[in-house]
Amino acid sequence: MELFYAYEVSGGVCFLDADESGHCVRVLRHRAGDPIDVIDGLGTLYHCTLVDDSPKGAQAQVLSSVPGFGAHPYHLTLGCCPTKNNDRFEWFVEKATELGVDDIVPLIGERSERRVYKTERAERIALSATKQSLKARIPAVWEPVSVKEFVQMADQVGHDGGPSVMPDTDRASLRLIAYCFEDDSAPRISIKEALAGFEGTSVTILIGPEGDFSPEEARLALANGYIPVHLGASRLRTETAAVTAVAAVYFRYMK
Amino acid sequence: MELFYAYEVSGGVCFLDADESGHCVRVLRHRAGDPIDVIDGLGTLYHCTLVDDSPKGAQAQVLSSVPGFGAHPYHLTLGCCPTKNNDRFEWFVEKATELGVDDIVPLIGERSERRVYKTERAERIALSATKQSLKARIPAVWEPVSVKEFVQMADQVGHDGGPSVMPDTDRASLRLIAYCFEDDSAPRISIKEALAGFEGTSVTILIGPEGDFSPEEARLALANGYIPVHLGASRLRTETAAVTAVAAVYFRYMK
Repeated sequence: MELFYAYEVSGGVCFLDADESGHCVRVLRHRAGDPIDVIDGLGTLYHCTLVDDSPKGAQAQVLSSVPGFGAHPYHLTLGCCPTKNNDRFEWFVEKATELGVDDIVPLIGERSERRVYKTERAERIALSATKQSLKARIPAVWEPVSVKEFVQMADQVGHDGGPSVMPDTDRASLRLIAYCFEDDSAPRISIKEALAGFEGTSVTILIGPEGDFSPEEARLALANGYIPVHLGASRLRTETAAVTAVAAVYFRYMK
Repeated sequence: MELFYAYEVSGGVCFLDADESGHCVRVLRHRAGDPIDVIDGLGTLYHCTLVDDSPKGAQAQVLSSVPGFGAHPYHLTLGCCPTKNNDRFEWFVEKATELGVDDIVPLIGERSERRVYKTERAERIALSATKQSLKARIPAVWEPVSVKEFVQMADQVGHDGGPSVMPDTDRASLRLIAYCFEDDSAPRISIKEALAGFEGTSVTILIGPEGDFSPEEARLALANGYIPVHLGASRLRTETAAVTAVAAVYFRYMK
């Protein structure tokens, strides 16, 4: 099953951009009249007929739609500090998308070596992994934000409950921060235990940089309702910790 | 904490090879008299004093030892068909090592595109990930073996119970095979459910190639006591499925 992404769906027609059109028409040699499957990136799959096989801007007529195609039964926001090695963070984006994540927030910590992050490549990887893993919703890759900003902005969202540029991490959501201070004062439980005791479906998890969160960042997160958790006995790289956290949520809601 | 690997430990002395010696002496500039931590790759950490700082063949005197350093409370054998793209399989080796795996068996399936696999690079990655994640036991990367051979050899091991060149997958171990036939006849349970109902600590999991196991391979595995499982609703790449399976075991035994 091959999925194509439509940047716009209107009037029962799916519009493919140049990349998707080229892949559909040039690479896979689809022609007008062929049945193709298209996702809108927002959660809906459309069974279509290709009506315009232009390799620059193909169009497909919607026959039927499947809302919530490939959806998972939770909303996961993963805030993670980009790694020094970009490939490692992009690998996390791919694997998290395959398993199931909704919002990816590149966090800049006080101890982050990488203080700038361009989201373009991660967005392309998220799109490709979404299609490859047969899902219709592409995870949002947010613009980088500082750890302190994020834990407080997220809190603001919770207060007014209104729409926001930041992911939904309202008061109903479980907020976890994974960190590993040597001088850890706050008692930590395992992410498994934290998730097992949670009845809701909205989860936000923060993963720090190689140098970990600063005590001040951790304090601020705890003050904003984040629960300190550990990811088990193994010492994991940042990107491994992030994917392991996504897997923990994936398993928590697995039937 | 920096760990060095000793290819031999005898008479209270740890012997480092050229790579490890160069890293210890040239890169990290350790000199005779410095305290260093050495692993034997079999599970024991040795607190030592560097006594010979030759960059070609350094030696360290053992002061004390920590058996089972960084050990996990289970024995996991992961049989996985190498991916077309070698990087993806090596990535799995790194992540599985960080989380905790004991034996990695490259499997050649009837539908495997990659029919030859050289283990050298994977062994280096396993060593490096073992040190990086602060463990003393390096996972064994076995020579490639066909799926049919493995499920039957493993069975033989179970029968005589004696030592073998193949990993321990005796009758006491839980055997799982993850596959996703469209025409799936055998009823599958989730890997989470299969692990939850298991009281032992020895687990063997088989992950197929991009083209999945052949019906004959699956039949033979089931005939040899393997339980068919699924890894949840998401369609995962081979290497993602393998790491997800390792994470499932990691979480199963997490306190």
